[in-house]
Amino acid sequence: MRDVVKAIEWSDEKLRIVDQTMLPVELVHLELESYHGVIEAIKTLAVRGAPAIGIAGAYAAVLVAVESLKLDAALRCEFLGKALDEIESARPTAVNLSYAVKVQREIFAENRIVAGDIVDEKLVARLLGSASEIHERDRQMCDAIGSFGAELIPNGSTALTICNAGALATGGIGTALGVLYVAKEQGKLKRVYSCETRPLLQGSRLTCWELQQAGINVTLIVDSVAGALMKKGEIDFVVAGADRIAENGDTANKIGTYTLAILAQAHGIPFYIAAPETTFDRSLPRLSDELIELRDSKEVTCGFSAQTAPEGIDVYSPAFDITPKELISAFITDRGVIPGGRK
Amino acid sequence: MRDVVKAIEWSDEKLRIVDQTMLPVELVHLELESYHGVIEAIKTLAVRGAPAIGIAGAYAAVLVAVESLKLDAALRCEFLGKALDEIESARPTAVNLSYAVKVQREIFAENRIVAGDIVDEKLVARLLGSASEIHERDRQMCDAIGSFGAELIPNGSTALTICNAGALATGGIGTALGVLYVAKEQGKLKRVYSCETRPLLQGSRLTCWELQQAGINVTLIVDSVAGALMKKGEIDFVVAGADRIAENGDTANKIGTYTLAILAQAHGIPFYIAAPETTFDRSLPRLSDELIELRDSKEVTCGFSAQTAPEGIDVYSPAFDITPKELISAFITDRGVIPGGRK
Repeated sequence: MRDVVKAIEWSDEKLRIVDQTMLPVELVHLELESYHGVIEAIKTLAVRGAPAIGIAGAYAAVLVAVESLKLDAALRCEFLGKALDEIESARPTAVNLSYAVKVQREIFAENRIVAGDIVDEKLVARLLGSASEIHERDRQMCDAIGSFGAELIPNGSTALTICNAGALATGGIGTALGVLYVAKEQGKLKRVYSCETRPLLQGSRLTCWELQQAGINVTLIVDSVAGALMKKGEIDFVVAGADRIAENGDTANKIGTYTLAILAQAHGIPFYIAAPETTFDRSLPRLSDELIELRDSKEVTCGFSAQTAPEGIDVYSPAFDITPKELISAFITDRGVIPGGRK
Repeated sequence: MRDVVKAIEWSDEKLRIVDQTMLPVELVHLELESYHGVIEAIKTLAVRGAPAIGIAGAYAAVLVAVESLKLDAALRCEFLGKALDEIESARPTAVNLSYAVKVQREIFAENRIVAGDIVDEKLVARLLGSASEIHERDRQMCDAIGSFGAELIPNGSTALTICNAGALATGGIGTALGVLYVAKEQGKLKRVYSCETRPLLQGSRLTCWELQQAGINVTLIVDSVAGALMKKGEIDFVVAGADRIAENGDTANKIGTYTLAILAQAHGIPFYIAAPETTFDRSLPRLSDELIELRDSKEVTCGFSAQTAPEGIDVYSPAFDITPKELISAFITDRGVIPGGRK
């Protein structure tokens, strides 16, 4: 296994996760023995990143079964249904979470048909096997993205990335950062510049931390330094993750991704999106600005427990922006590299 | 007079300045009766912006003369020389400060030839007249920039700006913001988007505050929202100040300005630099990246009294970037509009 932080591990009947709310100050693990603990961890962002949340949700269903062992059979059925609903609504927008709960719910349903309200160690083992499979598939997906992506990277390259599409967000080595970890292994990676990624500073707090842990040369910049760095010739390629990709290649990702894509084009620097094939939503012809979630203005006006903007100021704080295919050199997926639309 | 905050005023033998360290939380004025107080205000950034610092330095020389009235003639000469040196070195990089002290020093020197070590009310009045003249010239410079700039602005425009090149930085209505104040007066300005301007958040703390005070519709964004806003068609023009402009039109300004210029070009949006004619340094053929001041990494890693990056992380935090003339639509100066090099 690569020397990369493990955000989520199942061991000794507990879910062990890195408490990301404590980063970058301290590496603290939470050991969760109840599904409520997992829900709390999802809600407080102790665990974050769509794939990581999905995996945590799958393991939470195992804890539900274990907890139900202690209940009277009469109470069990209602408990199981309610608990799975609670897990699913811990983060309603996380597609991976709904998927993981759906998979586990089916195992409960099958069991019910076969065994009625009986929950036993065999069921727990099946749920655990299913969660491990979701986890393992994610790990393999990351490895595949990393391998395909690293083939695109020339020797001695310096990368620029935004937000955290890394080990902390997935069950493996990450997507955008997966490419960098594999490139590093292959001796191709000189340095990574990490955009701090306002307003929530995932680049500063998480990406810098995990790359530093993995012994990669990483330099932190405020987001507006990106252009000046490219002008100086310091950046060889940009790699970012994706939240959702439409049929036409429109890519939604953390706010600031579009700006990096424009800058990369203006400086003739390759711009890559690294994401699992499942991120492509073929049912969506294109993405619309109108659908973009707006963040709480307080993250901008007093993001660090200090008031840094006047009272009552209007704030526009979109969580994502949309990068059209025409600005993307290639999509790096777990099934291979798909050409983008950049000339 | 326009309804714009006055960062510096002389009244009742005192220098009254807005304490910018208290913004945007509270509007507090400092009333300075000693030149030491002015030096302290410059050093703590209670007063900031090259023109405003120059004006404060000129008034500080008046306070030097007033304070010396109380001294024995024997001590006076040494006191005067030392005090002026101290004022000049309060901010060694501020060209306007050196200039203001030089002007006042000449008045002291002339007086010495005529009157020996005598300091009297007549000398104080001459120094005050000189300081007021520096202040008034700056006010007029701002008004001229504002008027020339506003001519470029179509009706119903929305502007984007960065950092604070406003009333808080000058003796008048500002340079970049001067254009916006005059456009507002002429009924042409719909809204201003202000980049927060990491790392020190001058846009968030100061520009938002002063535009809000002046009743201008202002919306705060994190720096990386600029591209998405332009893509949505929300921005009609960009206007920024300048710290220094070389013979070839290379323009040094707050980090992030270059990125906005690239974005503006990519979206076909005019990009203006507003600065007094004196900002052009004809002795410099071009600007070099090598000369750019690097800021303390702590401003990035724990800028708001919270640690937001891992210990020991490498940080690259240039204070300025350089925008080439080719990306600038026009320079708006107090002598008129000079065409830029953008096609």
